[in-house]
Amino acid sequence: MTDVKFKRLALIGIGLIGSSIARAARQHGLADEIVCAARTDETRRVALDLKIVDAAYENPVDAVRGADLVIFCTPVGTYETIAKAIAPALAKGAIVTDVGSVKGAVIKAIGPHMPDHIDFIPGHPVAGTENSGPAAGFAELFIGRWCILTPTKDAGEGAIARLSAFWTAMGSKVDTMDAEHHDLVLAITSHIPHLIAYNIVGTADDLEDVTQSEVIKYSAGGFRDFTRIAASDPTMWRDVFLYNKDAVLEMLGRFTEDLAQLQRAIRWEDGDMLFKTFSRTRAFRRQIIDAGQETAAPDFGRVHPGDDSAGKP
Amino acid sequence: MTDVKFKRLALIGIGLIGSSIARAARQHGLADEIVCAARTDETRRVALDLKIVDAAYENPVDAVRGADLVIFCTPVGTYETIAKAIAPALAKGAIVTDVGSVKGAVIKAIGPHMPDHIDFIPGHPVAGTENSGPAAGFAELFIGRWCILTPTKDAGEGAIARLSAFWTAMGSKVDTMDAEHHDLVLAITSHIPHLIAYNIVGTADDLEDVTQSEVIKYSAGGFRDFTRIAASDPTMWRDVFLYNKDAVLEMLGRFTEDLAQLQRAIRWEDGDMLFKTFSRTRAFRRQIIDAGQETAAPDFGRVHPGDDSAGKP
Repeated sequence: MTDVKFKRLALIGIGLIGSSIARAARQHGLADEIVCAARTDETRRVALDLKIVDAAYENPVDAVRGADLVIFCTPVGTYETIAKAIAPALAKGAIVTDVGSVKGAVIKAIGPHMPDHIDFIPGHPVAGTENSGPAAGFAELFIGRWCILTPTKDAGEGAIARLSAFWTAMGSKVDTMDAEHHDLVLAITSHIPHLIAYNIVGTADDLEDVTQSEVIKYSAGGFRDFTRIAASDPTMWRDVFLYNKDAVLEMLGRFTEDLAQLQRAIRWEDGDMLFKTFSRTRAFRRQIIDAGQETAAPDFGRVHPGDDSAGKP
Repeated sequence: MTDVKFKRLALIGIGLIGSSIARAARQHGLADEIVCAARTDETRRVALDLKIVDAAYENPVDAVRGADLVIFCTPVGTYETIAKAIAPALAKGAIVTDVGSVKGAVIKAIGPHMPDHIDFIPGHPVAGTENSGPAAGFAELFIGRWCILTPTKDAGEGAIARLSAFWTAMGSKVDTMDAEHHDLVLAITSHIPHLIAYNIVGTADDLEDVTQSEVIKYSAGGFRDFTRIAASDPTMWRDVFLYNKDAVLEMLGRFTEDLAQLQRAIRWEDGDMLFKTFSRTRAFRRQIIDAGQETAAPDFGRVHPGDDSAGKP
């Protein structure tokens, strides 16, 4: 059996994902010591107060010293600078990974700076909430969610197996694929949904004839579903779009073509085309629920006032 | 105080909304008798088995006979035919209303056929789930949600007050506005979000390089939030877009302009513009939560496996 326990886990960044890893790793006894690096005094203080790390450093170099597992949990735009800085301090045999939402750009940013005596295995847990910061994390975040590893040919089989076991122990299902394919898949399942959600909230905010207070009052008609992901961390998402530009532009092109076709059907009152489009999408949701990636409870299991339990009207 | 109790409530159609009204009206004692009309034997049988109506008729004319409150709960495209058919059977002093998601077209479809001896007051409860049919309804659906009435100048003050009291008794907050403004407000808060959600699910379904099973597996990255409203009733939504064409095309034009601007920012790597757009949208969600139209629990309060309660990680 693969030894999943690490001696020192170093988390570079301790936001929603980093702090959830800290909690889950502690809960499942996956590391003897858990440390983090964070830029601000405030974040380090919160992480220590929450008792999710044993030590918190300002400088990532201090965090990675002696660590056998190093995880980048900062926005992707910071990776290259950090990689250059920590490279000389990395312990022999360490596994270096990350949780970034793009993978091709991460390999370019980190890969060239890594010494030969470590294993670099890019990773992406497909999990999250709209909240940010060390207090927003929770140990259950990864349960039942997929974690995608995109190892390059340099990574050792043993290291890949150990990192997989680490994610599996936190409740994840692990998949491996090449970075380019990852970036295409995530463009449609994650990046475009976020872009569209940010966009419609912006459009609504700009209207002259409909007030903000009206949009807020009547948001239960559908709009509020979009505001959840549009409340996600702006720095992280800016970096996602800058670093997965090609795949995002490709998928966005398809999305807008399809939307133009629906727009035309509305203008020309082609009810059959609309009905056909609206019918095929139901099956998709059923499959997502069956795959355990969504709740079957109506309205996402939101509690309805007057109910005594979520999703059980 | 306004007398909110009706003698006979006739629901034309008994799907998600109609059956929720039946349940809430019964729970709060708002009608001595509750009857419905439904096209299929199956729907009538389910409504009777659920004991949410006292009688179920195939012909709407039989349902409205002797009713002092008649509510259209079928897709908007059926309204005109039904209005013509029931007009001669409507009781003197009856209130006729509806729950359609568009209001200008409803006034055109029903208004001209209504006799002088009734009060016609179009209405729209801004509430729903992605599920359809009589078994999907529940009495709590309208609690804390807005119901918009768009009375024309012909409607009596007393009748408007009674209908408002009826919705208030079921837990709704009631607003009145003119039909044209309603259609503009709902285009952005409900119709465009549905169109976009239907569209992206369609786009994902068509990809050659990303399999359906990959979209399903990694949908927790954001995509699954869109599938909820894309699972809504296709007939109802076809009619919404056909009957609110002008407002939808206007709002869609703004949405696509804004999206083109974001697309350009991605292409030219304008990180500042992206960050600015992604930052302004957070405040919107906070306000929707503060207004009681959304849960503050992360991830909509979805239960995370391993949690013992929804939204309390």
